[in-house]
Amino acid sequence: MKIDPDDRNSLTETTRQLMGNVAIVLVGPKYPENIGAAARIAANMGISQLIVVSDDPPDQERMRKTATHHNSRLIDTMQMYADLGTALATFSWVVGTSARQGRQRRLLTSPRRMVVDLLPKLAENRVALVFGPEDCGLTNDQLKFCNSVACIPTADFASINLAQAVAILSYELYTGVVQFQSESAGKPSAKLAQSGELEGMYEQIELTLHKMNFLKEMDYGYWMHNIRNFLGRVGLRSREVKFVRGFCRQVVSLAKEKDA
Amino acid sequence: MKIDPDDRNSLTETTRQLMGNVAIVLVGPKYPENIGAAARIAANMGISQLIVVSDDPPDQERMRKTATHHNSRLIDTMQMYADLGTALATFSWVVGTSARQGRQRRLLTSPRRMVVDLLPKLAENRVALVFGPEDCGLTNDQLKFCNSVACIPTADFASINLAQAVAILSYELYTGVVQFQSESAGKPSAKLAQSGELEGMYEQIELTLHKMNFLKEMDYGYWMHNIRNFLGRVGLRSREVKFVRGFCRQVVSLAKEKDA
Repeated sequence: MKIDPDDRNSLTETTRQLMGNVAIVLVGPKYPENIGAAARIAANMGISQLIVVSDDPPDQERMRKTATHHNSRLIDTMQMYADLGTALATFSWVVGTSARQGRQRRLLTSPRRMVVDLLPKLAENRVALVFGPEDCGLTNDQLKFCNSVACIPTADFASINLAQAVAILSYELYTGVVQFQSESAGKPSAKLAQSGELEGMYEQIELTLHKMNFLKEMDYGYWMHNIRNFLGRVGLRSREVKFVRGFCRQVVSLAKEKDA
Repeated sequence: MKIDPDDRNSLTETTRQLMGNVAIVLVGPKYPENIGAAARIAANMGISQLIVVSDDPPDQERMRKTATHHNSRLIDTMQMYADLGTALATFSWVVGTSARQGRQRRLLTSPRRMVVDLLPKLAENRVALVFGPEDCGLTNDQLKFCNSVACIPTADFASINLAQAVAILSYELYTGVVQFQSESAGKPSAKLAQSGELEGMYEQIELTLHKMNFLKEMDYGYWMHNIRNFLGRVGLRSREVKFVRGFCRQVVSLAKEKDA
């Protein structure tokens, strides 16, 4: 097919740069064909990176068949990780995906709303869109890494095919970026803390609550869930994470003094 | 998965009725897996009908595998036609799909704009979303049936997988319908002429131009293309089609008198 030079307008290069900050993260995909199809649509929408969280490398032939030769570049550069936390460590904004029936209701948002929230952060931050396995989606333990969780609305409340869910979210993001670019040229965007920094902070918060004897043993999970929901939505910067950790250290040393 | 009764709000039933007026039409699909995947996402978005235009019935097993058991209902009721004109005869608004590089530039619109144009017509008219074969898309001869042509924007100007294109347009339409429902309860929508009526009218217009000796022989295709573009966009009602045909009859009888 021929490319029309008129379509390569001045926004295109910046749009490409923004989309280049986005990665698709597939957790435990069962069918290599879905990985290939996700790679193809991600490349179509200018997304630069594909990450698979799995113990077993997927079948190359089945994966490359649906990726098509033209879009095999995301398969060539695909990264594999054994666990989600490590995969997300350098990302500063993590969007999970879920069927409507999930328990993480407070974080649930529509794909369009998710994109609106994400766009101002995209210039300065690496963003991950995380999708669970075909049959069961992301677990609550995996959703805890997410700043927000997008749910694709459906008429029948049934789950959507993995590669089609990737298609819908990638398309929403790309069209959102194109529109955002034309509306907000020049406005600055804040650099957020990375997922690895946040996880260190959450560990320290939980440790601090323990040291304070703040809660009965059985309630920590519940409280940490709420704290993650709240702090995750905020979009903390690195220095704010350092502030929270410093605060926790103070609290712990106070608790020690009291015990002494 | 459990269904939350809170999500079945008062809009849902009307949304279902509107989406029930929509059909997905796949012209010459090469892979039965894509038909199945299209059926699945169409059912997810409340679309009630799937039509395949092809001479050969697709492989049931390969098709049903990607449709999944839960969404096999659209496969069970799937209609097959040998030609697109017959398949579309009872539809009143036909949306084609095309990669950006098509020659039918004048009709090209974004999926979101396509949905905005379509929504006021949906209550009273059957609507078809038409997708071409995986490798080459719809021909100009097939695009001539379309009132508008939607082009999914991409960063790399490459074609999108068929089932993912169906996913993106079905999703746009469903989210548009849900939003439209909440904004325009009670407003009436006009009943448009069906595709079969329009085709009869176009034949009569072309015959009339011939009888008038209006054009040199080689220009009829070009003129009919322009006339289709113009009248297709308008969204003619049945009585307007009858008016145009009556006008053509008058012109032909005038031409005959002149020759006599």
